[in-house]
Amino acid sequence: MRFTHHAALMKRIFIASRGNPEHMACLFREELPNHDVITEQPKKGEGPVPYIVVGRPLPGVIAAVPGLELVLSLNAGIEHLLASGEVPDHLPIVRLVDDGLAEGMSEWVLAQALSWHRNLTVYQGLQARGEWAPQPEKLARERRVTILGAGALGGAVTQHFVNFGFKTRSWSRSGRLIEGAQSFAGREQLLDAVDGADILVNLLPMTLETADVVDATVLRRLARGAFFINGARGGHVVDADLIAALDDGHLSYAALDVFRIEPLPAADPLWKHPKVLVSPHVAAPTHAHAAVLEMAENIRRFERGEKLPHLVDRSLGY
Amino acid sequence: MRFTHHAALMKRIFIASRGNPEHMACLFREELPNHDVITEQPKKGEGPVPYIVVGRPLPGVIAAVPGLELVLSLNAGIEHLLASGEVPDHLPIVRLVDDGLAEGMSEWVLAQALSWHRNLTVYQGLQARGEWAPQPEKLARERRVTILGAGALGGAVTQHFVNFGFKTRSWSRSGRLIEGAQSFAGREQLLDAVDGADILVNLLPMTLETADVVDATVLRRLARGAFFINGARGGHVVDADLIAALDDGHLSYAALDVFRIEPLPAADPLWKHPKVLVSPHVAAPTHAHAAVLEMAENIRRFERGEKLPHLVDRSLGY
Ligand SMILES: NC(=O)c1ccc[n+]([C@@H]2O[C@H](COP(=O)([O-])OP(=O)(O)OC[C@H]3O[C@@H](n4cnc5c(N)ncnc54)[C@H](OP(=O)(O)O)[C@@H]3O)[C@@H](O)[C@H]2O)c1
Ligand SMILES: NC(=O)c1ccc[n+]([C@@H]2O[C@H](COP(=O)([O-])OP(=O)(O)OC[C@H]3O[C@@H](n4cnc5c(N)ncnc54)[C@H](OP(=O)(O)O)[C@@H]3O)[C@@H](O)[C@H]2O)c1
Repeated sequence: MRFTHHAALMKRIFIASRGNPEHMACLFREELPNHDVITEQPKKGEGPVPYIVVGRPLPGVIAAVPGLELVLSLNAGIEHLLASGEVPDHLPIVRLVDDGLAEGMSEWVLAQALSWHRNLTVYQGLQARGEWAPQPEKLARERRVTILGAGALGGAVTQHFVNFGFKTRSWSRSGRLIEGAQSFAGREQLLDAVDGADILVNLLPMTLETADVVDATVLRRLARGAFFINGARGGHVVDADLIAALDDGHLSYAALDVFRIEPLPAADPLWKHPKVLVSPHVAAPTHAHAAVLEMAENIRRFERGEKLPHLVDRSLGY
Repeated sequence: MRFTHHAALMKRIFIASRGNPEHMACLFREELPNHDVITEQPKKGEGPVPYIVVGRPLPGVIAAVPGLELVLSLNAGIEHLLASGEVPDHLPIVRLVDDGLAEGMSEWVLAQALSWHRNLTVYQGLQARGEWAPQPEKLARERRVTILGAGALGGAVTQHFVNFGFKTRSWSRSGRLIEGAQSFAGREQLLDAVDGADILVNLLPMTLETADVVDATVLRRLARGAFFINGARGGHVVDADLIAALDDGHLSYAALDVFRIEPLPAADPLWKHPKVLVSPHVAAPTHAHAAVLEMAENIRRFERGEKLPHLVDRSLGY
């Protein structure tokens, strides 16, 4: 059969997502008509499958794919993929950082930050009591913001804070420069980076180095009454330290989108804490269409021998 | 006495604000040491007082000032000053548009818009019930925003919406161009400007032409479930039409910072409306120091014979 013969010559892409692999396959076929897109585990004898698209791999799935050359992660954060031990060391992994991701995160972080900054919740309370009571209002330029992480997401978020005129500091491993913000690099500059900040935003990747980074030492260096926003991972935060800082008034509020266990267990004290805003990991959702466009482009780049953006550095863990 | 003699030669500035004129006088003296700053009504025989700084003038105060050349409004909106009939036709009026004003308004409008756009209030409700329930999230680029007014405030706000990637339309008298936004001009393009918008922001000045502009006709042209933000004046909105549109679900929410009567009377239905967010005229507060810097600069410009920015066009009413 002509079709089968032709398909056998086409490079194969295995969609191993646990969600709706057929929907994603459909989008891939439209985007890469000269590839063969499959959703079932390829068998050993069938010839090579150079690409796998995967979120959290089931055990053995990746190892069983013959002739694999590139792993396309369905997530921006790849700590679970690495921790699974399912990806052989020699295989390159590309994170999914589609166009919409940095936009979504920027919208969500700035929504939280500006709402707090301009007392929207305070006015909601006053309205409920029928009170017309203007609060002392500060301008963005009178507030200090620190963003932990200056990557695809942290960098975009930082730029928006700068656009509003906040006094903005950025902390990263290498001290990446972002126009209008002050840069800080590495562990030894962490406390200088957060010192006196009114708003602290966490957008770090989850690695051995960044686990528990937001602890009492960091939180106590913020300005009294500060606001903490976590858009990265629950494991970055020592919850007990956060709750203590909220309870004794050192922090005024925390907006948390991510947690050590998700969904956040019903018994977790964060749910009912009066100074905690819980959202269900929605800060930067993946949009299937944008995701496929980005992954398809990465496959084309790979085949042209170009450098891939957002390639994971296995030694750094992100 | 040398001092008195010297003072008599200095140009005089009369601070006629009803708030704390002494505090403002102090700031003025620091900024313009070669002027004589007074806070009491000057008497006829005393020689000319070319400058008056005034918000809502008490009857007769302006007319009684000898040799007045320039009226410096303490507000950005000057409809009350014009309506008072207290400012003789030949006198130029400069609005107060200090640096912080456009910033404050941008922060407040974007706080409201992004909070609604990213469902922050919805997640607050879900958290209260202990529900982990991600909502369908849109990106800014999938939402249409229309801003009425493209002046000092509307222009700055529009730029921020563009920065976030919203599909942005701007409506003004002259169709002023703002990079990244689509411009519409005059009454005949109003309905095209608002058609299908998800967010409508009002930042018009209050004039005969703009009174009641946000009525049923405009509101019904917005997308179903739209959000209305009023940062300008209560008189721009037909409250009954707004409430009807909220009640039948055509609009999802309205954030109102300004009202026909302020403070908003206790009996007003807006206070308790479940879809209305009331704030007490705090979107863009005047900061005394920034205000004085701006007014002092305007006095210097006037004395150098330069063109004054934000001069009121008496025939247009803004
Ligand atoms: N809530 C959500 O919906 C959601 C959605 C997507 C992603 N996320 C989270 O957001 C995280 C960040 O994503 P991204 O795409 O912006 O990551 P990225 O591009 O890899 O950027 C990571 C940033 O963190 C810095 N960094 C890494 N290790 C560090 C260390 N030990 N000390 C100081 N700085 C360190 C990096 O420094 P250099 O610049 O020097 O490399 C870089 O600036 C993801 O890992 C994921 O956990 C959350
Ligand atoms: N809530 C608060 O805290 C607060 C604080 C300060 C000010 N405000 C309000 O904000 C208003 C706007 O201030 P601003 O400094 O931005 O004013 P502005 O610089 O005078 O700008 C007014 C804008 O409205 C447009 N416009 C005027 N009449 C119009 C008409 N008939 N049809 C269509 N467009 C019309 C103008 O068009 P052109 O560009 O063609 O002239 C201009 O773009 C003030 O008047 C005040 O009421 C509220």
